[in-house]
Amino acid sequence: MEETPEKAAYTLGIDFGTDSVRALIVAVADGAELAVGVSYYPRWQREEYCLPAENQFRQHPLDYTESMVAAVREALAAAPASVAGQIMGIAVDTTGSTPVAVDASGTPLALLPAFAENPNAMFVLWKDHTAIQEAEEINALCRKWPTDYTQYEGGIYSSEWFWAKLLHVTRADAGVAAAAHSWVEHCDWIPFLLSGGKDVGSMKRSRCAAGHKALWHPDWGGLPPEEFLVALDPLLAGLRDRLFEATYTSDEVAGHLSAEWAEKLSLAAGIPIVVGAFDAHMGAVGGQIEPFHLSKVMGTSTCDMLVVPADHVGARTQVQGICGQVDGSVIPGMMGMEAGQSAFGDVYAWFARLISWPLENILAKDESLTPELREQLIQNVRAAVIPELSKAAAALPPGGEVIAIDWFNGRRTPDADQRLKGAIAGLNLGADAPRVFRALVEATCYGARAIVERFVAEGIPVAGIIGLGGVAKKSPFIMQTMANVLNRPIRIATSEQTCALGAAMFAAVGAGLYPDIPAAVAAMAGGFDAEYHPQADRVAGYDQGYARYRQLGEAAEQLAH
Amino acid sequence: MEETPEKAAYTLGIDFGTDSVRALIVAVADGAELAVGVSYYPRWQREEYCLPAENQFRQHPLDYTESMVAAVREALAAAPASVAGQIMGIAVDTTGSTPVAVDASGTPLALLPAFAENPNAMFVLWKDHTAIQEAEEINALCRKWPTDYTQYEGGIYSSEWFWAKLLHVTRADAGVAAAAHSWVEHCDWIPFLLSGGKDVGSMKRSRCAAGHKALWHPDWGGLPPEEFLVALDPLLAGLRDRLFEATYTSDEVAGHLSAEWAEKLSLAAGIPIVVGAFDAHMGAVGGQIEPFHLSKVMGTSTCDMLVVPADHVGARTQVQGICGQVDGSVIPGMMGMEAGQSAFGDVYAWFARLISWPLENILAKDESLTPELREQLIQNVRAAVIPELSKAAAALPPGGEVIAIDWFNGRRTPDADQRLKGAIAGLNLGADAPRVFRALVEATCYGARAIVERFVAEGIPVAGIIGLGGVAKKSPFIMQTMANVLNRPIRIATSEQTCALGAAMFAAVGAGLYPDIPAAVAAMAGGFDAEYHPQADRVAGYDQGYARYRQLGEAAEQLAH
Repeated sequence: MEETPEKAAYTLGIDFGTDSVRALIVAVADGAELAVGVSYYPRWQREEYCLPAENQFRQHPLDYTESMVAAVREALAAAPASVAGQIMGIAVDTTGSTPVAVDASGTPLALLPAFAENPNAMFVLWKDHTAIQEAEEINALCRKWPTDYTQYEGGIYSSEWFWAKLLHVTRADAGVAAAAHSWVEHCDWIPFLLSGGKDVGSMKRSRCAAGHKALWHPDWGGLPPEEFLVALDPLLAGLRDRLFEATYTSDEVAGHLSAEWAEKLSLAAGIPIVVGAFDAHMGAVGGQIEPFHLSKVMGTSTCDMLVVPADHVGARTQVQGICGQVDGSVIPGMMGMEAGQSAFGDVYAWFARLISWPLENILAKDESLTPELREQLIQNVRAAVIPELSKAAAALPPGGEVIAIDWFNGRRTPDADQRLKGAIAGLNLGADAPRVFRALVEATCYGARAIVERFVAEGIPVAGIIGLGGVAKKSPFIMQTMANVLNRPIRIATSEQTCALGAAMFAAVGAGLYPDIPAAVAAMAGGFDAEYHPQADRVAGYDQGYARYRQLGEAAEQLAH
Repeated sequence: MEETPEKAAYTLGIDFGTDSVRALIVAVADGAELAVGVSYYPRWQREEYCLPAENQFRQHPLDYTESMVAAVREALAAAPASVAGQIMGIAVDTTGSTPVAVDASGTPLALLPAFAENPNAMFVLWKDHTAIQEAEEINALCRKWPTDYTQYEGGIYSSEWFWAKLLHVTRADAGVAAAAHSWVEHCDWIPFLLSGGKDVGSMKRSRCAAGHKALWHPDWGGLPPEEFLVALDPLLAGLRDRLFEATYTSDEVAGHLSAEWAEKLSLAAGIPIVVGAFDAHMGAVGGQIEPFHLSKVMGTSTCDMLVVPADHVGARTQVQGICGQVDGSVIPGMMGMEAGQSAFGDVYAWFARLISWPLENILAKDESLTPELREQLIQNVRAAVIPELSKAAAALPPGGEVIAIDWFNGRRTPDADQRLKGAIAGLNLGADAPRVFRALVEATCYGARAIVERFVAEGIPVAGIIGLGGVAKKSPFIMQTMANVLNRPIRIATSEQTCALGAAMFAAVGAGLYPDIPAAVAAMAGGFDAEYHPQADRVAGYDQGYARYRQLGEAAEQLAH
């Protein structure tokens, strides 16, 4: 990009995903994406601290900090040297709810030598489902308490969320419980860390995280009251006072880049850092969300955002079975509604892993090949599995008996239930890999449809879909199936990195370069580069398929309980 | 084997399986297996005439005759030259119900030039399910007819059986229907062919095939009456008279080896050939069946035989939901009861194919390898998949959430229903290939348990299991799981080829060398070489698993209807 003096203002969006962190340098004037750096979490890649069969997924804070440094430096290295000095603001988005126990200084316990290898002292990743029991207890208590604190989170608390995870770890690990002064979300911690925060009490907590995941609401003065928490478990006594009362939207400044972190990141000290938020929320902004369009970030899971203007006639703020509705969580001034599917791309990846077993376990030991050749072959196949399956599945005639349920990682919405599991039925001896893959793709689309139908049933119209994220960009087959199953058009945002781009927009507002988020979006958004329309001759078939999905889903619910 | 004058009598058992034919030369005195020849059906191997996705499986009569010649010659070549002249009898067993349309000379239509490439003029293999609709019509008509002709076949007629297939082809192919003078089972045709039969009216029909699959019963004078068949479809008018009235057990002689076939097979003309029967029935005899022990031939599917002595107090001859009970079908003088699972090893093979897709479709095109090396690698992996999966599955801790249904090829018993399909549920992201494979193995064992429980519920005790066939011999993991799921001991017959051995026993009786089948079994059977006992600490877990299997099975039934 050619630099002109009037355009020489940039912001930095830092997007922490499930597997990697991405740092994006964006021109404030027009949203041009100048340079990017990506770094994968090394411990996570080695599958440390995780027990997939038990749905335990933990991430070490060093994975985040080391990868952040690498990604920011990589982005800067790819940009002209002058750019580092022209970065005017930073914003961070992360996965969530991904909480961690911290000491009074706000330091995650795993950064202390005593807890360095303890998974309970690490971030409990969004998709960790070890807290199923605790979520059920929270739900049971909310049902009988005078106030149902889940009323703005769809009426069902999830094991993926803050309180369930906090309680689970507190019970499971007395050492961590004793050392935990407070608990923080990943998106709260990074801005605090970068701005040199020393007292967790001063940490500016994200409205988005608190409202969607921590039962925070102004109606009851913030977090649920002490009595409720003690009734849940006396182990929680006293914790509430060490958590937080106020929350902040991401157009506000959380702090300014400390000298220590300015040096690590090769940036200037003092740059404003805005309050953090979840990836899908900033991603929806980066992907040009508009009222009543569902902005669907489709990656390993989906996070589905919908914004409702404050003046929407008959607007409901309590939508049954949808996981959150929080004022200002996406765009300050609008009601942000969040839904999502616990597994999306993860379903395809599961199948790719399943059918790669012979390669990884038999071919990998074939001594007629050199180790290098074996590894090369496995890499070749691994890279090709999903594209080749998509091609083969797209070529199948319509119809097909195989039907699947997408709850491989539980169900987030509608009606959160992490005990649920995936299923595949209608299998005969001719059900080959492309047919099963197609059924899995359809299942993820039916899961999306269940969310759309719930919004509509609850009085929130859904006019169309905005597709974001890796799956949306990379798989026309999946997106066309989605358009057919939903019988709604889907537009795909041009940017490959809407989360980081959205963060850069928030950073621009935080730096005072735009007055508000809509103004930043108008100037910086990248538009759409693909649009899928429902194919009339396929829609009816998918109506039938959806009925079968619901039928099999009922069976899967019965099996799980 | 050393020959002594008094032992120099042999019989030849010819066993037509799903994929190949096997010819076994057996010493009459002690059942020693002297020599064997095996030949795979060439057209079948090339997957000709089949549409697996539609469950159409047809076999060309030339596959049978060409492979039979090759197998018999191979067996003779492996034996001392004098043996050919010492073979005193021949018996044939085949899959079934595997019927074909024939002309008045008893020639399968596909052997006529006009029909040489027409799948409807070929044998409709046991596992062909194109006649689902016709089976339902037969069931519906039987329900409202004064006599329910399915009463000795479990009360439900299957699409795998004679009349459904005959009617389906008759409707689907007017040319074949017009040329079809009669219809014969594979096990009826081979003895007729070998003995030089020229008139289908003189063909000795198998009691076993007719009683288990063609609604033949003395109570109503043989086959169902003309009025019933015409009510089923006027297209069937007149056919009954061109079929058969009498049936024969396999201790009777069907004919004697013709000069033409003696030359083709390098045997002496005039050798007695006994009446044919289905493979599992002769296999049960070869595997030393005894009353109230379920003889389970476990291959691609299972065929489960149980014999009840005529004097069994309270013996029922109409067992609801079990596919057949026929006097003399296994051992003349006892009630032969047949049950079975439509897919058994086929379920494992399905999974092996599913997870070999990347190899067969991606690695197979990897141009960094030579075609020979690619093929070699694929062969190596293909051969190792099921053994390696078994090893990995056996090493898993007990329990596991994954649960499956084995109806990948419909359900034969209890309660035949070919519309049913397989299913896999309880899947999370950690459900890897060994976990899914274990669930599939358990599903096939739960399917076996459903049969055992039905026998018991209908007043037929089941004391233990006799395991026969490839899966029984080759997979200790599967057999141990079976013993645990059934909570009954399983003995594995020593012979690798009990069907052909059983046929050789029938041939010995037909040749007058033993007075009856029990005498032949006593002298010629090979005993057992493995025994599996239920593991007390696993049995309770499988009781729970079976309850989940039944629950998922109900869902699969609802989905299919």
